[in-house]
Amino acid sequence: MSSAVIPRPIPVALLGLGGVGKAILSQLLSPPLSAQFQLVLIANSRQSLSLPLPAAPITPANFQSILEKHGAPLNLTSVISVLSTHPDAPGIFIDSTGTDVIPAMYPQILSMGVHVVTPNKKGFSSSEALYKAIAEKSFPNTPSFVYGESTVGAGLPIIQTLKDLVATGDEIEKIEGVFSGTLSYIFNEFSKPEGGDVKFSEVVKVAKDKGYTEPDPRDDLSGTDVARKLSILSRLVPTAPALPEGYTSIPTQSLVPDVLSNASTKEEYLERLEEGDEFFANVRKEAKKEGQVVRYVGVIDVKSGKVEAKLGKYPADHAFATALKGSDNIISFTTKRYSPRPLIIQGAGAGADVTAMGVTSDMVKIYERLAVSRI
Amino acid sequence: MSSAVIPRPIPVALLGLGGVGKAILSQLLSPPLSAQFQLVLIANSRQSLSLPLPAAPITPANFQSILEKHGAPLNLTSVISVLSTHPDAPGIFIDSTGTDVIPAMYPQILSMGVHVVTPNKKGFSSSEALYKAIAEKSFPNTPSFVYGESTVGAGLPIIQTLKDLVATGDEIEKIEGVFSGTLSYIFNEFSKPEGGDVKFSEVVKVAKDKGYTEPDPRDDLSGTDVARKLSILSRLVPTAPALPEGYTSIPTQSLVPDVLSNASTKEEYLERLEEGDEFFANVRKEAKKEGQVVRYVGVIDVKSGKVEAKLGKYPADHAFATALKGSDNIISFTTKRYSPRPLIIQGAGAGADVTAMGVTSDMVKIYERLAVSRI
Repeated sequence: MSSAVIPRPIPVALLGLGGVGKAILSQLLSPPLSAQFQLVLIANSRQSLSLPLPAAPITPANFQSILEKHGAPLNLTSVISVLSTHPDAPGIFIDSTGTDVIPAMYPQILSMGVHVVTPNKKGFSSSEALYKAIAEKSFPNTPSFVYGESTVGAGLPIIQTLKDLVATGDEIEKIEGVFSGTLSYIFNEFSKPEGGDVKFSEVVKVAKDKGYTEPDPRDDLSGTDVARKLSILSRLVPTAPALPEGYTSIPTQSLVPDVLSNASTKEEYLERLEEGDEFFANVRKEAKKEGQVVRYVGVIDVKSGKVEAKLGKYPADHAFATALKGSDNIISFTTKRYSPRPLIIQGAGAGADVTAMGVTSDMVKIYERLAVSRI
Repeated sequence: MSSAVIPRPIPVALLGLGGVGKAILSQLLSPPLSAQFQLVLIANSRQSLSLPLPAAPITPANFQSILEKHGAPLNLTSVISVLSTHPDAPGIFIDSTGTDVIPAMYPQILSMGVHVVTPNKKGFSSSEALYKAIAEKSFPNTPSFVYGESTVGAGLPIIQTLKDLVATGDEIEKIEGVFSGTLSYIFNEFSKPEGGDVKFSEVVKVAKDKGYTEPDPRDDLSGTDVARKLSILSRLVPTAPALPEGYTSIPTQSLVPDVLSNASTKEEYLERLEEGDEFFANVRKEAKKEGQVVRYVGVIDVKSGKVEAKLGKYPADHAFATALKGSDNIISFTTKRYSPRPLIIQGAGAGADVTAMGVTSDMVKIYERLAVSRI
């Protein structure tokens, strides 16, 4: 058997060490990824640590304390420079932060020849100006790749599938789905095909207690997260409407009822949550009358040119009613080829491990795309 | 805006011009693929035609008659040589035939630096010796890629998703699904959650009349097609049992009842089809008693080391009972990360356009993987 041609590991810097960042670190330090990528730097918002360490290697167990003890103040310019001047350059910059500061720098990072992989939705879902600047500085306009599979559906192959459909000449007619793990859980519990009278406020509180919501549940209930995901997908569909201001250009139904919109703190909002129960009970009652359930969905309807995030009603035997459990996402693509029956992808759309997997699978794609030129 | 860096088109030879081959041709001659790939040869089992033609270009409408009229006798050695010596080499060899002659040549084709993309299951599902020879001559052991996304689930992203799970360090526990569009249709009609007493023989005849089955329905009902797909997926799971003889190493339940196994021709088989009805009616009755439906499934159970193609019973509210319609495939991956709720992919798993899409999406992957070195 001929010996394998193994390209050199690709240097990687990981910024952001929250839940997802830690899971990325853990995957990158384990086989099979540990043979393909070489972590040269990790950083949180304040400090960075160059690797490898002169002493023992870092591990998922010890990196936090070593960073705190031996880290240098974070300097983004020098992080990028490490990746672009490394002997095995170009390297990969992982933005696992939630800020919009770093996405604003993607064009600069890419134009220095560095690749970008990120679960951060901000760069792809904000202004069209930033989106275009990122596109202009990345493949196929330059040799630098920028990938964000885990910005929609975490590790589920949503973005790659949409790209494949478009790249092979299919025509997208409609993309429809439950895009928020938090709102999936809340409505799967609140509105079941078989009925039930649980209060909306109770379901939200359980979801918060289980850690399914953001610290302030209004961040999920505002629908903003769903609108951002719709913005990211829309921009991959050549015939979808333009979104000059990104997610804010998308009509988005907020689930914070009018009666609670004047709550100034999350504490006050959570205390007064029952005041919104009547609104949701009525929505559920109306749906039930028609044999339907209530779900918070995102819809990209290419034919009518409408992109919306909203409460929708679905028949009790619809996949959005029956197939969903827990905090699963479900996304259906109706296309010229996949119609009348759509292509459907379903599964956990949130969680540190699966979100990290979306990031590392993008990295494997870059690895394979560079491999031929690095052999 | 900087001008796009556009790599030169990749030369392509397409062998096999049946339903899928024609759909591949049609996609390759249309945007966006027509800018990335240059068809340099098409061939059926007898004749080949070098392209471009000195006169008018070929189209999906005229290629058949031009090939018949101006084609030269097919010479496989010279086809491979065209792709390996082209000024824009290495090219892509598309095997859209159903034979096992060409798959036996993949190692040779790959070792001449040519890439292989195919919807033909034979190469990946036969002996381990051939499978290993193909692997040895392809990436990452050589710079030649070999892809077969459409060998399982046609255009559905089944193989890429499984590769991503494995490549990012997930552990596959179980893969389970309805892998045959034909058997999906037959059992969706025969065994419905709400019941019904249609005869098995009638459903098979309707399926044959609609063109959902092979000309001899026993080719679908033997389970061989499902076993081949299980073999292809198993080989991508490092911890799955070895299959020295490929699909024939997999226990496979045939749906040609014992009473009909002595039918010597497909005509005799179709005439005597009702003789098997009692067997299937009993299976359905047993399932119904337990509130279940009958489906023909493939299962790769990594924990128990079992790979099987068989009739299975599923609760009336299971996704295999409720979510399936028409000839959809549904495949669920239960992994360390995706459990207890699996990652599910569903949609048309057969048909010329979607099968061709699986082929052309593989080609796009090769295009992108070569692009960096071709800029």
